[in-house]
Amino acid sequence: MKYEFPHKDIIDPDQFTKKDLETILTITDYVVELQKAKKINHLLSDYLMASLFFESSTRTRLSFETAMLRLGGKVISTVGFQFSSISKGETLYDTMKMIEAYADIAVIRHPVEGSSRIAASAIDIPIINAGDGAGHHPTQALLDLYTIYKEKKSIDNLRIAFIGDLKFSRTIHSLVKLLTHYNVEIVFISPVDLAIPEMYRKELKKKNIEFEETEDLKAFWDCDVAYVTRIQEERFVDREEYERLKNSYVVNKAMVLASKKNTMIMHPLPRVNELSTDVDSLPNAVYFKQAKYGVDVRMALLILCLQVELPDL
Amino acid sequence: MKYEFPHKDIIDPDQFTKKDLETILTITDYVVELQKAKKINHLLSDYLMASLFFESSTRTRLSFETAMLRLGGKVISTVGFQFSSISKGETLYDTMKMIEAYADIAVIRHPVEGSSRIAASAIDIPIINAGDGAGHHPTQALLDLYTIYKEKKSIDNLRIAFIGDLKFSRTIHSLVKLLTHYNVEIVFISPVDLAIPEMYRKELKKKNIEFEETEDLKAFWDCDVAYVTRIQEERFVDREEYERLKNSYVVNKAMVLASKKNTMIMHPLPRVNELSTDVDSLPNAVYFKQAKYGVDVRMALLILCLQVELPDL
Amino acid sequence: MKYEFPHKDIIDPDQFTKKDLETILTITDYVVELQKAKKINHLLSDYLMASLFFESSTRTRLSFETAMLRLGGKVISTVGFQFSSISKGETLYDTMKMIEAYADIAVIRHPVEGSSRIAASAIDIPIINAGDGAGHHPTQALLDLYTIYKEKKSIDNLRIAFIGDLKFSRTIHSLVKLLTHYNVEIVFISPVDLAIPEMYRKELKKKNIEFEETEDLKAFWDCDVAYVTRIQEERFVDREEYERLKNSYVVNKAMVLASKKNTMIMHPLPRVNELSTDVDSLPNAVYFKQAKYGVDVRMALLILCLQVELPDL
Repeated sequence: MKYEFPHKDIIDPDQFTKKDLETILTITDYVVELQKAKKINHLLSDYLMASLFFESSTRTRLSFETAMLRLGGKVISTVGFQFSSISKGETLYDTMKMIEAYADIAVIRHPVEGSSRIAASAIDIPIINAGDGAGHHPTQALLDLYTIYKEKKSIDNLRIAFIGDLKFSRTIHSLVKLLTHYNVEIVFISPVDLAIPEMYRKELKKKNIEFEETEDLKAFWDCDVAYVTRIQEERFVDREEYERLKNSYVVNKAMVLASKKNTMIMHPLPRVNELSTDVDSLPNAVYFKQAKYGVDVRMALLILCLQVELPDL
Repeated sequence: MKYEFPHKDIIDPDQFTKKDLETILTITDYVVELQKAKKINHLLSDYLMASLFFESSTRTRLSFETAMLRLGGKVISTVGFQFSSISKGETLYDTMKMIEAYADIAVIRHPVEGSSRIAASAIDIPIINAGDGAGHHPTQALLDLYTIYKEKKSIDNLRIAFIGDLKFSRTIHSLVKLLTHYNVEIVFISPVDLAIPEMYRKELKKKNIEFEETEDLKAFWDCDVAYVTRIQEERFVDREEYERLKNSYVVNKAMVLASKKNTMIMHPLPRVNELSTDVDSLPNAVYFKQAKYGVDVRMALLILCLQVELPDL
Repeated sequence: MKYEFPHKDIIDPDQFTKKDLETILTITDYVVELQKAKKINHLLSDYLMASLFFESSTRTRLSFETAMLRLGGKVISTVGFQFSSISKGETLYDTMKMIEAYADIAVIRHPVEGSSRIAASAIDIPIINAGDGAGHHPTQALLDLYTIYKEKKSIDNLRIAFIGDLKFSRTIHSLVKLLTHYNVEIVFISPVDLAIPEMYRKELKKKNIEFEETEDLKAFWDCDVAYVTRIQEERFVDREEYERLKNSYVVNKAMVLASKKNTMIMHPLPRVNELSTDVDSLPNAVYFKQAKYGVDVRMALLILCLQVELPDL
């Protein structure tokens, strides 16, 4: 199977053209099919991945390691403060030069914004950003995009709601950027204090994407997709305001059953109380499937960054 | 090789019939033979195991990971507080739904009693309980059972002593439950304050298993097997009482040589001072072999839970 | 390919004869060639390595794990305080008996000098010392030796400078011991307070190796190799003395360009400020290559300790 993918690294959702996104979705479809025949294969059996988590994120780390292992690859792994050289004052540049001597591809999670770009420029092997502080988490946005595409067959012509903390959610910002490549309508549902930042509104206008903003949770009832996120207490100066809003933005079974378009419910997880467990049993709930699609998308990205040849299925 | 094993999960020693135990012992014999030809094989090369240690237990974790790797399987692993989502308030149910998206089987160690049962009911992949707080540690009991069976050729007609803290030792409680399926005699040797709990005495009576209780350590001299455990200081209110008893229940070389039946000495490890190192060189000492049998039994359990077909040897 | 290697364990640089060193260099050449054809092979696919880091050293741990995985081997791994049995009072002897039941070879890093020798004598499987406190770190010395051999084609007839903390650097002490098997000249460059200890001067004299001692950093200008190490603040009683010396022993681009013999610059890493980053782009800098050679040398040592048959290339 032929593909073109002009990127060594996965750093930032802005790096992708529409064609790149289509390639990622197509290759993810390929690996989903591949796993139907055999859950573990040998496509990457000649490669070793370094899993570098300068801060802990078990969900993301295990997702990448699963992706690599199911492709037959090898994994070396390290978490958090175990980077003893860092504590001795080693720079990220020097650490990455060491990793380049060990691995064929590296996944990096780091608390400092922009660090994955520094890491990628230091070395010749591919780097995948698994979250860099207040920066980006592009593989999360790509797995969200794939989830919509896979479950709804197409991304175009969908009406998509974002619910919760739209101001600080890195996940939502990245996904909104990817959606600007498609013909969608967006509904932003949040308290005024947690509205989507002006830069995203500007970008949507520039790309002629229709969007609405509202405080009314019921606005998701006429949407095809509702993407729920947590409202974090620490974002509020006024605790009473938090308590009032927290209870205004809880998506539960009754709310979902009232939707007019059988809205598909997404969540990046972990959830706390903003998404009731009584939603889990509804066919609308796809958030646990998202975790599985996350592995699939990461398998595709490992293949694409390593430019591995794919046999026809 | 054909077998029947009607369990998806390994949760609790009470779940097994006599027939189940015989199946586990037989399949363990099979993997012991298998390793004589080749130390690493490919029986589970299409499977990925998640090693989920919500609390640290290096001995048990490495034993399970060794078992999976020697069967050609893949392993993703995480320890303790590295479960960052848990610290954000995620429930065990949600964590397990994520793991189900990654792995084909999961081993779980958790500080809360009953947690492995909750984990197993949350998801469809097999779960093996590697210890849940004051609850059970069934794979330890099964490896103890296999050690007796392997070293003594049969479990029936043996006289088996348990020495030390019989009140709190989870290991002993689980093994006693398994032994009620066999025709054995049991001698409980402990200080009165650390005697075997009434519920186990009741169960033994119900199953017509002969047992004695004594404070006299020398009672193991006419036993075929002596299972030694540590007396933990923190169980005593009276420190002097602890100091006196600690020294009354030390099994050393002279004690072992005085046994009339060449008693086989077992210990779940780690040991501190209740079992002298001068016993190590005696043929009676099987406690380091127990560690090896632990890997073998866990290999068998992985095979059984995954219902993997076994080629004839 | 035939070889002779009369060692089960790698414990101490003193254990090697000149012939052993030549064998290690030759087998390392072999694995370097091997990897040109295929980055991951199956030479050790029937073996499992335990990576036992009783203290954290990410650089060394990942180097050994990479070596094992690239040879097709399996790895179980544990770091630091996660050794929960140790915290319960288990001895190193007992821990190693457990590891022997799991693994075919073990790599051990431990804060206590001499611990790797204790570990090796406890069990029958090969042990590789990955650093034991103030004791030895023989694989670092061997990778340094291989770096010189590989880059300079031969070790004989070289003039080699050691710069920095010659008193406490375990790395330098071990490499000096290995170099006594060759016909080299050595220049020790350090503040008087951090001079090479008398025992090494004695050994060099006994072996008729020419050496000089000086405080003048420029002394490396007529050397073929300069091995730079860090001067650690905590070694000084007088902080002003430290500040003065720290700035006297900084190797930078201008210093390197002034060398008369195009000196090759080595460093064990991590570096802080004793080696400027402006040296990185010079062809003289081999310290990032050292990290790669470290993997190669460790691959050779795993093969040698396991006495694995090598197919001709």
